[in-house]
Amino acid sequence: MRITIIGSGNVATHLSAAFKNAGHRIAQVYSRDMQNAALLAYHVGAEAIDDLENITADTDIFIIAVKDDAIAEVVPQLSGFKKLIAHTSGAVDMQLIQDFTERAGVFYPLQTFSKTKELNFREVPLCIEGATEEITRELEELARSISNNIYRVGSSQRKILHLAAVFACNFTNHLYTISEQLLAQHSMSFDMLRPLILETADKIKEHSPIDVQTGPAVRNDEQTIQKHLQMLKNEAKLQEIYSLLSQDIIKNHNTGNGDK
Amino acid sequence: MRITIIGSGNVATHLSAAFKNAGHRIAQVYSRDMQNAALLAYHVGAEAIDDLENITADTDIFIIAVKDDAIAEVVPQLSGFKKLIAHTSGAVDMQLIQDFTERAGVFYPLQTFSKTKELNFREVPLCIEGATEEITRELEELARSISNNIYRVGSSQRKILHLAAVFACNFTNHLYTISEQLLAQHSMSFDMLRPLILETADKIKEHSPIDVQTGPAVRNDEQTIQKHLQMLKNEAKLQEIYSLLSQDIIKNHNTGNGDK
Repeated sequence: MRITIIGSGNVATHLSAAFKNAGHRIAQVYSRDMQNAALLAYHVGAEAIDDLENITADTDIFIIAVKDDAIAEVVPQLSGFKKLIAHTSGAVDMQLIQDFTERAGVFYPLQTFSKTKELNFREVPLCIEGATEEITRELEELARSISNNIYRVGSSQRKILHLAAVFACNFTNHLYTISEQLLAQHSMSFDMLRPLILETADKIKEHSPIDVQTGPAVRNDEQTIQKHLQMLKNEAKLQEIYSLLSQDIIKNHNTGNGDK
Repeated sequence: MRITIIGSGNVATHLSAAFKNAGHRIAQVYSRDMQNAALLAYHVGAEAIDDLENITADTDIFIIAVKDDAIAEVVPQLSGFKKLIAHTSGAVDMQLIQDFTERAGVFYPLQTFSKTKELNFREVPLCIEGATEEITRELEELARSISNNIYRVGSSQRKILHLAAVFACNFTNHLYTISEQLLAQHSMSFDMLRPLILETADKIKEHSPIDVQTGPAVRNDEQTIQKHLQMLKNEAKLQEIYSLLSQDIIKNHNTGNGDK
């Protein structure tokens, strides 16, 4: 397919590379910032543009990968081409595109992307929604060309997925940051924690997380919890986070059996 | 070495197996629950006991792997043997053992263990502390026989490590649980999130987590944050967790650049 990429951030970058590797042609890459557009366009052999006026009809699909609140600004400028338009957002209704064109869809990669980190795109779950069955199938075919994990997900369920992803990924990464900062304040290297973090994630490959919860809260070890809160006495926010998450773990679990 | 294991939980189970595999002899396994003691003792070829009166002197070291507040109960019953005694806790001072014997140490594995999950013990960071340089070296030698990641860590730094581990592991796993429950409430499988969770952890192998933070909060995407809070309106605790962690991410980061 001929694909036009609207955006040049993490999602745009990884999607473009995956499409290109699967043999599709990236026609144009748009970004408000010409330097960003040019960098990505160079990598995927596309034309870089920083003005939507320069969009051409020489494409089969527009993939919109810009910040959520910018989607509504670009759709009206694309709909005149009568091509398929899909956004890549977890949180935005397909309706936002349908208001302008019936050839609307969603192509949501349920993954966290950073420009500096390679990943195997064939394992990225792609959540597909189309305004018609024909569009859904067309998007599924495109999706299958770059991933083995394709799901049909409607707008309301996709929003739940996105919300769950914020907990499982964004908040989790922030907890990693907190732990790194705690160690740094006491001259210890984050390397000491890396094996623990990897194992914590590895565990849920084959287990439900509720079955492998460990730590003071699930053991109802009130003494340790109090010691930790005391250690955080000069970090009000961290103390609040510690307290709230511990309470929620205790609420979710029975008390331990005395062993660690 | 001849090793006596006090406890039969997750830490006791994984440590015993690692010692056994490294050629050490597990002399006895103690648990208040004879069935638990017997099960672990069977696996590592040791004698099972459920009464500390039956501890024998035929050992070189007592490794205490019981719940933190039970450590103080067992030490006085072991110190008479004049053998090395080490606990495995992140949160407890070595002094608690030293109050009873100078042959005191700490052997803290900075990892999350579940009985049903195998792991490569050679990658587990072991934090060692000894009452004397001789004891520290003895514990380091024992540690090196089962792991490649040995650190000397004093009691006060070990407590920081343990606190950081609660954030990076225990709280993280609870966020996984929250996300699984959100999906389940809407008839979606946790399998959809597993690749995201694994990638989130994989990213920090070679990056600092603060450099790879993604999501609405780091983009300062107030509209999405408000939508998410609205979706959680019937889940007061989750709403509170969402709000607190988002605020903390915003506080830690600058605003995004418009791209995703």
